[in-house]
Amino acid sequence: MDILLMIGTLAALLTTLSFVPQVIKAHTTKKTQDLSFGMFMLLSVGLILWLVYGIALRSLPIIFANSITLAFSLYLLYLKKKHG
Amino acid sequence: MDILLMIGTLAALLTTLSFVPQVIKAHTTKKTQDLSFGMFMLLSVGLILWLVYGIALRSLPIIFANSITLAFSLYLLYLKKKHG
Repeated sequence: MDILLMIGTLAALLTTLSFVPQVIKAHTTKKTQDLSFGMFMLLSVGLILWLVYGIALRSLPIIFANSITLAFSLYLLYLKKKHG
Repeated sequence: MDILLMIGTLAALLTTLSFVPQVIKAHTTKKTQDLSFGMFMLLSVGLILWLVYGIALRSLPIIFANSITLAFSLYLLYLKKKHG
């Protein structure tokens, strides 16, 4: 694997996995007051569009990274809706 | 502009701008307790790698979108450090 592909893969992994600590925190504390509903709303719509883009391009990395991030974002949106 | 490029551009705009409501909320309320430090730390490192990737590829959209998101992420990290 060349160095550039490695950097891109690591970048995609980190930005996707960055949501894990936030999901764990919101899930366990049930506290979401300081989270912005608008952020995860806009983010989810944006990620759906990235997914459409990835499917159209048949790009597995774009499809894969954005599906996982979308799942995290939708779950945070659900927790925010539930706990306020 | 073809439809696919339009979807990609809109996706990049939305995922980048999604941070705006969170930045405004954290900045005005000075409340960041429910935000995960780990999220914005991993995200910032990931975005720096995306930036390196974009610079290596000389891809202006990747450089542009990730610079702005990085600025938002670092500012949220600063607010989180400041307000706890």
